[in-house]
Amino acid sequence: MIGVAILGSTGSIGTTALRVLERQHTRYRVAALTAHSNKVLLAEQATRWQPGYVGLVQDGSGHPAGWETGPQCLVRAAQRDDVQVVLNSVVGAAGLDATLAALERGKRVALANKETLVMAGALTQAAAKRGGGEIVPVDSEHSAILQCISGRPRSEVRRLILTASGGPFRSWTRAQLESATLADALKHPTWNMGRKITVDSATLANKALEVIEAHILFGIPYEQIDVVVHPQSVVHSMVEFVDGSVLAQVGQPTMEIPVLYALTHPERVVDHGISSFDPVKMSPLTFEPVRLDDFPALALGREAGMAGGAAPAVFNAANEAAVALFLDGKIRFMEIPRAIRSALDAVGGAPSETRVALGEADARARAHVREHFAC
Amino acid sequence: MIGVAILGSTGSIGTTALRVLERQHTRYRVAALTAHSNKVLLAEQATRWQPGYVGLVQDGSGHPAGWETGPQCLVRAAQRDDVQVVLNSVVGAAGLDATLAALERGKRVALANKETLVMAGALTQAAAKRGGGEIVPVDSEHSAILQCISGRPRSEVRRLILTASGGPFRSWTRAQLESATLADALKHPTWNMGRKITVDSATLANKALEVIEAHILFGIPYEQIDVVVHPQSVVHSMVEFVDGSVLAQVGQPTMEIPVLYALTHPERVVDHGISSFDPVKMSPLTFEPVRLDDFPALALGREAGMAGGAAPAVFNAANEAAVALFLDGKIRFMEIPRAIRSALDAVGGAPSETRVALGEADARARAHVREHFAC
Repeated sequence: MIGVAILGSTGSIGTTALRVLERQHTRYRVAALTAHSNKVLLAEQATRWQPGYVGLVQDGSGHPAGWETGPQCLVRAAQRDDVQVVLNSVVGAAGLDATLAALERGKRVALANKETLVMAGALTQAAAKRGGGEIVPVDSEHSAILQCISGRPRSEVRRLILTASGGPFRSWTRAQLESATLADALKHPTWNMGRKITVDSATLANKALEVIEAHILFGIPYEQIDVVVHPQSVVHSMVEFVDGSVLAQVGQPTMEIPVLYALTHPERVVDHGISSFDPVKMSPLTFEPVRLDDFPALALGREAGMAGGAAPAVFNAANEAAVALFLDGKIRFMEIPRAIRSALDAVGGAPSETRVALGEADARARAHVREHFAC
Repeated sequence: MIGVAILGSTGSIGTTALRVLERQHTRYRVAALTAHSNKVLLAEQATRWQPGYVGLVQDGSGHPAGWETGPQCLVRAAQRDDVQVVLNSVVGAAGLDATLAALERGKRVALANKETLVMAGALTQAAAKRGGGEIVPVDSEHSAILQCISGRPRSEVRRLILTASGGPFRSWTRAQLESATLADALKHPTWNMGRKITVDSATLANKALEVIEAHILFGIPYEQIDVVVHPQSVVHSMVEFVDGSVLAQVGQPTMEIPVLYALTHPERVVDHGISSFDPVKMSPLTFEPVRLDDFPALALGREAGMAGGAAPAVFNAANEAAVALFLDGKIRFMEIPRAIRSALDAVGGAPSETRVALGEADARARAHVREHFAC
């Protein structure tokens, strides 16, 4: 039995993972569960799964005895000896330390927290190298790429083609985008996700983070990572090889497939819970170019990735801060990329060599956005 | 340098292969060329490539000195010591002996002659086992499947999904099909191929052969091999794995990709001659169910495959004979599947254990069709 820790078990990915583990209970055991603040659901999950460890990030009372509370619970869960796989679906930079801790201890991190990699790609890779851990992506796009590459060497890859749903504003004019509301942004066409990531999907900041994540995970230069809009979200991403052949991973938009694959990679296990793919039902599949000028976050992310150093962390932190302001009704939709641009210019060149330095760059970027953009 | 013999070098696949080898000349050497009857083009190719062996299937005079003529040239080319890969693109059952000979000698057979496998799957596999040879498919569909499986064990495959262009009659009514002419049938929507295979594509007999070929090549039961119509021929086929994930191989409809992959599998080599895939240009991709009742050859092929023994050989031979009659204007389009049905009923249970027995079943099926269907 392989012990799994689920960090963020009450969120969208966490609950998906528990559905998958329900079916795969002969191979995997839920060893640890942590949640941010949803005590009620976490208590239900703990009763059902009887993990050896339960953690709640939000301090406070009113939780069952035996739970550990406070932000350190993420790292504690990730480090446990009875945990071999850490599914990290914590939202945002808060997930970084747990990823580093798990990698240092030689564990597999099934990573749904792309900010971890974006913020601290070099640190993460160094931790994996030191500790013998490995990162397997849970994002549907990166899982698709991993499945398409399937053990072939990086030298055989010509290009990655990430697909993007295009978000709710795919066909909005620039003028419409300027007046887009929060309610508009939260209508995601195909995936049912949390609020922060749904806004990221509307700005394409999410795709920017994924481009950086792909660069770090697969070691492919930014020039060889393309994005194409694919509104149906059936083709999850593609890999073009050096001989001109292209493999694509396709399927209905359920996160159960990439979650399961992150556990079993490079193997596959039988899962009857995932129904057969019906290409006729998915037809037609369409592809469009990205409107880079109207969704500037994508180009900003690529720029930050290429700049390296603290710039990706600043991109991520500025985006998080700006999205928080947008969710609070304090800035308008198109101010999100402007806030990122401004933070990159102000803080992008900050030191980045250590976890502490990155934390400072992160904090400065957030402060910059709050100071200059909150009204 | 790897020596390549091209059997059928003046045909569509043969000339494609030479274009590919032109670019890959640092890895591969053209060691042998054979053609059926196109002396002029074969002479040009021989001058350009200077192979150690040139063969012409059609006996006769007027060819350069040093060529070997007669049907035995296929086997002779395939057996040569300076040949490591035999690209077999001979049309129809005539290619079988060369495939067997190459496999017996431990060579790789890059197989564009699907009739070989359909007619004599068991013999072919026994020859490969005895001699240590291997078959790598050149058909775009099977190459796609091979690329999607990419070294994973058969036990991880839930289902193969072969795509079919649907041929020129995809949207024709049954009444229209009954009066379809030769000229109609030769208009293939996406691939530029020989006449026989183009008719097979119109009847879906080609797809039937491919279903049988897939069964033999990949060891997947017929119940787990589906066909879906995909008019754009951009998705070359798909593999659904046991965990519900689906991989697809996609790209522009050029045979250069599967020909090159058949040479290099499981590796990939850089080929700048194959331009980058543009999903936007290929958009939209559509999928439709196969109209099994109106294209009965597909179900007949599946039936023959499941029956086993001589039935697949009879299916293939009856189809070849019927297509020849159709190309000669002697039978109508919808008589092709009727001829196959009739031959399967009459000869499908013939002995099949040896090459000679299969040859007899093949001959009886052809005779049956000519006797009962030629007007």
